[in-house]
Amino acid sequence: MKIGILGATGAVGRQMIKCLEESDLNVEELRLFASASSQGKTISFNRNDIEIKDANDNNLQGLDYVLGAVSNELSKKYYELIKKTGAVYVDNSSAFRSDKDVPLVVPEINGIDALKHKGIIANPNCSTIISLMAVAPINSLSRISSMVVTTFQAVSGAGNKGIEELEKQIEQIRNNEKTDPEVFVKQIAYNCVAQIGSYLDNDYTSEEMKMQNEGRKILHLDELLVSCTCVRVPVYRSHSISIRVLCQEELDLDKVKEAIACFPGVKLFEDELPTPLDSSDQNQVFVGRIRKDLTDPKGICLWCCGDQIRKGAAYNAVEIIEYLEKHKKGAL
Amino acid sequence: MKIGILGATGAVGRQMIKCLEESDLNVEELRLFASASSQGKTISFNRNDIEIKDANDNNLQGLDYVLGAVSNELSKKYYELIKKTGAVYVDNSSAFRSDKDVPLVVPEINGIDALKHKGIIANPNCSTIISLMAVAPINSLSRISSMVVTTFQAVSGAGNKGIEELEKQIEQIRNNEKTDPEVFVKQIAYNCVAQIGSYLDNDYTSEEMKMQNEGRKILHLDELLVSCTCVRVPVYRSHSISIRVLCQEELDLDKVKEAIACFPGVKLFEDELPTPLDSSDQNQVFVGRIRKDLTDPKGICLWCCGDQIRKGAAYNAVEIIEYLEKHKKGAL
Repeated sequence: MKIGILGATGAVGRQMIKCLEESDLNVEELRLFASASSQGKTISFNRNDIEIKDANDNNLQGLDYVLGAVSNELSKKYYELIKKTGAVYVDNSSAFRSDKDVPLVVPEINGIDALKHKGIIANPNCSTIISLMAVAPINSLSRISSMVVTTFQAVSGAGNKGIEELEKQIEQIRNNEKTDPEVFVKQIAYNCVAQIGSYLDNDYTSEEMKMQNEGRKILHLDELLVSCTCVRVPVYRSHSISIRVLCQEELDLDKVKEAIACFPGVKLFEDELPTPLDSSDQNQVFVGRIRKDLTDPKGICLWCCGDQIRKGAAYNAVEIIEYLEKHKKGAL
Repeated sequence: MKIGILGATGAVGRQMIKCLEESDLNVEELRLFASASSQGKTISFNRNDIEIKDANDNNLQGLDYVLGAVSNELSKKYYELIKKTGAVYVDNSSAFRSDKDVPLVVPEINGIDALKHKGIIANPNCSTIISLMAVAPINSLSRISSMVVTTFQAVSGAGNKGIEELEKQIEQIRNNEKTDPEVFVKQIAYNCVAQIGSYLDNDYTSEEMKMQNEGRKILHLDELLVSCTCVRVPVYRSHSISIRVLCQEELDLDKVKEAIACFPGVKLFEDELPTPLDSSDQNQVFVGRIRKDLTDPKGICLWCCGDQIRKGAAYNAVEIIEYLEKHKKGAL
């Protein structure tokens, strides 16, 4: 199998390389693409140094899959080239997520949608993936009608520059220097910033609306309602999410816990508390603090943590390829 | 007026001294009390050094008010002494908050309850005060039936030792040393810890249930339902809270903003984003991100930040004395 990665030097691109190394996929050839400033440099894959190249028509020829970890703008540009090559494009940007002809896939939840692809599959938003991994098992017991969600998002969700900004500000404060927010709208060190993405007409941000829009598509729940508040916190890695789900019926808490414990890719925490630090560099989504909602008998409250670079991005994308390969020969 | 402070050397006690200095109260004499290890040391009040003493029967005589910033256990012990002196005890512990004979007061919301005191008034939980300051104006437009709440609580909520633990862990990580959680159940540096207080039978923590129990008493809403998730975050000071309130009627968003803007002690943020850092060392509660709940037309979502040592504790306690003094002569 021949795979290419667009944006191979970014936080998600580098993790895609690591997830491919860890996967059972038989990768005969890996091609790494990045911007001009990185071209000519090498990155190791399975102990071989791979030179970073330009993603032009020529270099994209002959690949089976391309994993995209670039901006919406670049993703659109490269997709025009990829679709001429016959490769399947698994895109981590949000450029194609709402496109009716593009499946939006979390393999454990709606892997089957991936099989209907027309050359491109979208990888969902990181907080959405992590939240849905926690609530999909509940949805299988009783349809979810609405969610009230508050996220605690790590700085690496903004890429390497997010990590650098937190590191820099921690040092500046240590040295009694003034901090200068650039990546985040306010100082992120020792602070919480309740604005991720840009404001829309309804006063929610673009990031907050992904939870409802993408949640509807992934769960096949066209009328799902979600009120989301996205907050950046001074955590390096892994997003945490406080969720109140409302179902069609009242559920037994033990059955909810059982469904979560049995769901692939999810780890139930009953006595211990999951934290973003524990879930960092893990593929599993950690779910804990499961309890009855006190405001509505049909509600469940929970707290989940997941590595947004792994399950929230790179690992989910690699899993999509694994799913396609597994079901290639009609093995469904 | 003669005032005493129990626990004068702690984070809240020290802030009480500062709030008294800033207030218009005519404090003729301030007596500071703390444990044996601090007795004999001095703390400055209005440029006078005041010696810290033992809160015994003798030293408590002749005071008009005593402000308490000690543990539940010590609060109960000292109240037995204070009630014999005739002083009014304003207690920041949770020991008496659920007592029917003890008013639980946020002066801007239910100051009038303080006038019915029988020698003791309880200061509410910090997150509860900050949340209620944001939602009380909404409750005045249409009665609140329920709230779904997620808190982002600063380490200083656990006192000076919480601050020291975050500082210590940041240094340990900087030096590639192992961290050792003592005050919080998990590492707090670069992490979020969704457990504050002890677990109760319903799987909520003692801290989480305060929002419903104290909210009912302060707002005089016996049937208020609250599902709360309390999370400790690596912020030094000021708690932030993500709230979804559900009212009896659907409300106009402009009227909600107007009510919040007009409410004493609250600052409305319309275009700018309030953060815990901005609200630190401020008496006002900052409220922003006000928008319609997308899951229910009768719901409102908002984000608020407030200094839990000031409005969440010391300032609220001093305001209670100010309220009592103002209404002493039947000036209501």
